[in-house]
Amino acid sequence: MARATTIADIRITPVAFADPPLLNSVGVHEPYALRSVIEVETVGGTIGLGESYGDAKHLHRLELAADALLGLDIDNIAVLRRAVSIALENDTTEGGHGMAGMVTTSSTLDRVFSPFDVAALDVQGQNFGVPISTLLGGRVRDSVPFSGYLFYKWAGHPGRPEDSWGAALDPAGIVSQAERMVADYGFSALKLKGGVFAPGEEAEAIEALSERFPGMPLRIDPNGVWTVDTSISVAERLGSRLEYLEDPTPGLDGMAEVRSCVPQPLATNMYVVAFDQIPESAARGSVDIVLSDHHFWGGLHRSKLLAGIAETFSMSLSMHSNSHLGVSLAAMLHLGGSTPNIDYACDTHWPWKNTEDDVVAGSPFEFVDGSVQVPTSPGLGVTLDRARLARLHQQYLDCGLRERNDTEYMRRFNPDFDASLARW
Amino acid sequence: MARATTIADIRITPVAFADPPLLNSVGVHEPYALRSVIEVETVGGTIGLGESYGDAKHLHRLELAADALLGLDIDNIAVLRRAVSIALENDTTEGGHGMAGMVTTSSTLDRVFSPFDVAALDVQGQNFGVPISTLLGGRVRDSVPFSGYLFYKWAGHPGRPEDSWGAALDPAGIVSQAERMVADYGFSALKLKGGVFAPGEEAEAIEALSERFPGMPLRIDPNGVWTVDTSISVAERLGSRLEYLEDPTPGLDGMAEVRSCVPQPLATNMYVVAFDQIPESAARGSVDIVLSDHHFWGGLHRSKLLAGIAETFSMSLSMHSNSHLGVSLAAMLHLGGSTPNIDYACDTHWPWKNTEDDVVAGSPFEFVDGSVQVPTSPGLGVTLDRARLARLHQQYLDCGLRERNDTEYMRRFNPDFDASLARW
Repeated sequence: MARATTIADIRITPVAFADPPLLNSVGVHEPYALRSVIEVETVGGTIGLGESYGDAKHLHRLELAADALLGLDIDNIAVLRRAVSIALENDTTEGGHGMAGMVTTSSTLDRVFSPFDVAALDVQGQNFGVPISTLLGGRVRDSVPFSGYLFYKWAGHPGRPEDSWGAALDPAGIVSQAERMVADYGFSALKLKGGVFAPGEEAEAIEALSERFPGMPLRIDPNGVWTVDTSISVAERLGSRLEYLEDPTPGLDGMAEVRSCVPQPLATNMYVVAFDQIPESAARGSVDIVLSDHHFWGGLHRSKLLAGIAETFSMSLSMHSNSHLGVSLAAMLHLGGSTPNIDYACDTHWPWKNTEDDVVAGSPFEFVDGSVQVPTSPGLGVTLDRARLARLHQQYLDCGLRERNDTEYMRRFNPDFDASLARW
Repeated sequence: MARATTIADIRITPVAFADPPLLNSVGVHEPYALRSVIEVETVGGTIGLGESYGDAKHLHRLELAADALLGLDIDNIAVLRRAVSIALENDTTEGGHGMAGMVTTSSTLDRVFSPFDVAALDVQGQNFGVPISTLLGGRVRDSVPFSGYLFYKWAGHPGRPEDSWGAALDPAGIVSQAERMVADYGFSALKLKGGVFAPGEEAEAIEALSERFPGMPLRIDPNGVWTVDTSISVAERLGSRLEYLEDPTPGLDGMAEVRSCVPQPLATNMYVVAFDQIPESAARGSVDIVLSDHHFWGGLHRSKLLAGIAETFSMSLSMHSNSHLGVSLAAMLHLGGSTPNIDYACDTHWPWKNTEDDVVAGSPFEFVDGSVQVPTSPGLGVTLDRARLARLHQQYLDCGLRERNDTEYMRRFNPDFDASLARW
């Protein structure tokens, strides 16, 4: 007989929300970002939420996983994971990483299982009457600090109206974008998504930020498009202005070479993105900081494991982000709130999303001095607003996008666009 | 105002139970084994149990920890751990490892915090209505397999009657001990505690076991008293009879040297006993198998972290044991039951304890084919029998032992006893 904690139903709803034309090393963000909202409902009627990528191939795998999870006990997360592992054994789909080709070596099982781990913890927390942070070992901070995520960008998507942020295509544009972000959110660290213009121009932007915000910790992330030599020379030029340098050059060997030559710590969310890459990175001394991300590290339990490994191997830790909605933000807050060694303010794309574009009810998140309170109500601490979910799903149906492809979108306007690594 | 989950009271009760004269590399077990039983009671009246070593210095540290934990929320294990860490900052006591000098480099914080982590999980499990295995990620097996732990031993403690096991001082004695253990418990793996007689005699015992139990996986653990050369020659002699070779020689370098020369996997519970020893061991390739032990790895959460690290770094995992009571066995079962990569049958001293010598109520554990069922009732799944606890505490008061010292006890009968490492 089914127990109250038996999984009775799983609903996977693809959604789309407006995204500005943010530039990166592989192209430009399309007009809509795709996500999936996962609801896992038990026989007892508790609904757990998860959020993941929205690419068609990823949705297909999520459906395979969901089929395998029906009828299992949501209290046994290890058994859920094993079921998903088996369900994916015969899946031969290529691609569908949900990350525009920038992170392609993460574990498929970890990426697919992640939202179900979050949803299971959401159900457990609700049933036990405790927030997820308790189930992850206990809250060690009341709020999680985030950094302001700066992007070069066009004024608006071609053929559409300008967005409220306007263009940022040079140091002055980046500085004024940062001014608004700091004023509105109170961030006390800033990261520039680089890899868009020549390294010298991007270094200039960092210098301009440093001049405008003296002492503000700054980071730059060119997503592996610099050579080792370029990485070293930019790092030398920027010196102590940089809190860390993120993924300057491709591969664990390249990263190790840069790391041995520059004073700043090296961070990654491209070359250590799965557990099987950690031993080699540790042996080669490739990185100082792992930017974790529960969406591809297998969920919240596995992200805690990553945090413990980082601490054991004297690596620092922070958090990577993609464009995301409130379900993911809640999960990031519980994880960040219960992980002692969050050593640097975390990334979030939150400011780039329109406030009204979400699937969670109410306005549960407020940035104060760049930080957001960890929810304290049971489970994730957020609930679905079904009208909002329906609207964002309709937007998904209407927008026609079925995968994220920043490069293809860029080439519509710039057919010769080069997306190769180490190109500078 | 205090919440229901606020810690209202902590009771630490030292106990002693009869222990046979089991021989090892540092001497012989004393007539009583010491343990401590930890009860953590919340304002709401839930009592969580833990079990740890019973040495006086360890008891002192447990008391320091308990003082720091009163008034804190038992649902926030991370904050409990931090409080214990602060409480131990000014403790300058040396020793008190509880393990007769065989494991002296474990983390004091992890050793002291362990029973409180278990007790907190016991409370949470009871309050949430789920077994601890659920809180550790879910049960992946219904029962945990153990190996039969064979010891050279005297017939009885000097000046006292013989015990029911009688003497085991040669291969024939070890074989007949094994016969009884296999008949009574159904073990399908056997481990010989070595380091007692010359390596050739101990190898002969393994050969005799192999002849009597063809195909039975066998292990020998001389606790680091062999040289590298001796280790290699014994390993070569025993070949495929050995499932693994445990701590043959001292130090990570010595272990790495042996490991590079022998066909069997090398296991340790002496040279990788704390998180800060893992990176060096991984870099040097010192061991294949880590024998975890929640009593010195910081409790159940931290033992799960160790398991995740072992999996990530392609090390195997099993479990070490000291003389212990039913609270510890329950904790080991939840841990073993929720850890996918328990790669070898675990150690337990359980058969060496008189059945009536325990502190838990009833007879909750039964060995079937060498395995014990993982408890499925909420929390640890065991409760205290206060009459038994009182009797074992009285035994502690009466026996006069206040620390474990196998070497001093041996030297009463054999004043020239040599307890040094690598002595063969």
